[in-house]
Amino acid sequence: MRLVRYGRPGKEKPGLIDDEGKLRDLSGVIEDIDVAQLAPKALRKLEKIPQASLPLVRGNPRYGVPVARVGKFIGIGLNYSDHAAEIGMPAPKEPVVFMKAISCLSGPDDPVMIPKDSKKTDWEVELGVVIGSRAQYVSEEDALKYVAGYCVVNDLSERQFQLERGTQWDKGKGCDTFGPVGPWLVTAEDIYDVQKLDLYLDLNGKRMQTGSTETMIFSVAQIISYLSKFMTLEPGDVIATGTPPGVGQARKPQRFLKKGDTLRLGIAGLGEQQQDVVAWSAR
Amino acid sequence: MRLVRYGRPGKEKPGLIDDEGKLRDLSGVIEDIDVAQLAPKALRKLEKIPQASLPLVRGNPRYGVPVARVGKFIGIGLNYSDHAAEIGMPAPKEPVVFMKAISCLSGPDDPVMIPKDSKKTDWEVELGVVIGSRAQYVSEEDALKYVAGYCVVNDLSERQFQLERGTQWDKGKGCDTFGPVGPWLVTAEDIYDVQKLDLYLDLNGKRMQTGSTETMIFSVAQIISYLSKFMTLEPGDVIATGTPPGVGQARKPQRFLKKGDTLRLGIAGLGEQQQDVVAWSAR
Repeated sequence: MRLVRYGRPGKEKPGLIDDEGKLRDLSGVIEDIDVAQLAPKALRKLEKIPQASLPLVRGNPRYGVPVARVGKFIGIGLNYSDHAAEIGMPAPKEPVVFMKAISCLSGPDDPVMIPKDSKKTDWEVELGVVIGSRAQYVSEEDALKYVAGYCVVNDLSERQFQLERGTQWDKGKGCDTFGPVGPWLVTAEDIYDVQKLDLYLDLNGKRMQTGSTETMIFSVAQIISYLSKFMTLEPGDVIATGTPPGVGQARKPQRFLKKGDTLRLGIAGLGEQQQDVVAWSAR
Repeated sequence: MRLVRYGRPGKEKPGLIDDEGKLRDLSGVIEDIDVAQLAPKALRKLEKIPQASLPLVRGNPRYGVPVARVGKFIGIGLNYSDHAAEIGMPAPKEPVVFMKAISCLSGPDDPVMIPKDSKKTDWEVELGVVIGSRAQYVSEEDALKYVAGYCVVNDLSERQFQLERGTQWDKGKGCDTFGPVGPWLVTAEDIYDVQKLDLYLDLNGKRMQTGSTETMIFSVAQIISYLSKFMTLEPGDVIATGTPPGVGQARKPQRFLKKGDTLRLGIAGLGEQQQDVVAWSAR
């Protein structure tokens, strides 16, 4: 099942993409795609609704983050062996954990804003994991049972803020619009093997990142189990699981985002995002 | 004005502490102390209500976090010159920013749970700042206008998780119950000079931390202005502004929390917290 939230920022309605790729409205059935709706039981109930009974949505509305009221937005750093190699960092011995400010959450096709004074805004296509049930000290074996679904995340990062302004990364990870999520929340049972998904990112039509979740150092199950020993994972939490090779920082010469650039990124089965890069403005 | 939220976890009602120190119910007047209620206008309106018109609350209810639906819980590290010195770290050139998972938020007198496998759970009394209006690229001069009020925060930290499991601190900052906030949200106009507040923390009746916000390296105004260049601060965001000397990690010999310990901590004018230290359990 491909769940979406569509409409103007802050006014999104729940919907789903049917088997023919058409957007259908769910607002007659559920209030929103939120904590209560992410539980396994609630999702199963939703799946039983005949798609044809849901009204088609006309036009091409904007998509928002496919989960309402995200609590935590957690990032995993250096989680692809080929990416760690390209930036000359040793593969971490255990997951590198940072947090993205939830104020950076943004629709999948909303413009990406370059912060004032930024010189090193960079892209990172990532597999996003949306938690469906509360997870505390869960085993790797059980970990995937706590997942509601998966989505595309662009873990935008300002490298100077992240790496040259002290030791802690969070400063460069949570700037406004640095967290496009979506377009779809694809429920977990629709993903046959989460460790065999192809990812890509194009800048102005040119391929920059290519990868597969096969080269993750820590699998999705390992990440969930690991995180659940440090904090309770709650329904609606989103985990960005790390990026494959090809970020701007690692290119020779380095290439960072500038006004007028366009990003296109996606993951097999999880849909595609497209973002225009613009200067920061109040929103 | 001293605002509180009282009652069982997840079922808190809004209230205020009147001039005689008595708890009065606000649930007939406002729904909760949340984003809308933190705006300067809404707070001024609340202040005009005659206290005597509000029903007294009987008994001794539990206090919760005095702000509902906290969005971000941001921490500032090494922000007291005397604390940086005690742990042998150079004073930072610019604020050290990390994030506490909001799932760690906890009432001021709720038990503090030691995570499983933890050997180094430590205390940190801190001045908490609650944002009242959206702040983006604000100047130091204007920064305090964006504050709804102040509160006591215990920025509990697992030193091994924070410092010995990689470079990023967030792992050791967001464990369950690692964020007691309250008892009161004291509105900003009731604090004459936020840079002249005394802080203290007692462990089992023995004074461990003594300090004053006078020795902050970066003032509250500087912190808000600084953070607002990296992320939008939203109403309901809480900033823990760093701890004065006397943490367990810096003592000789080091002293970390264990089951059966009791913490008492407070800040002049902002009230006091008291926490029993217990083993982790699901909640």
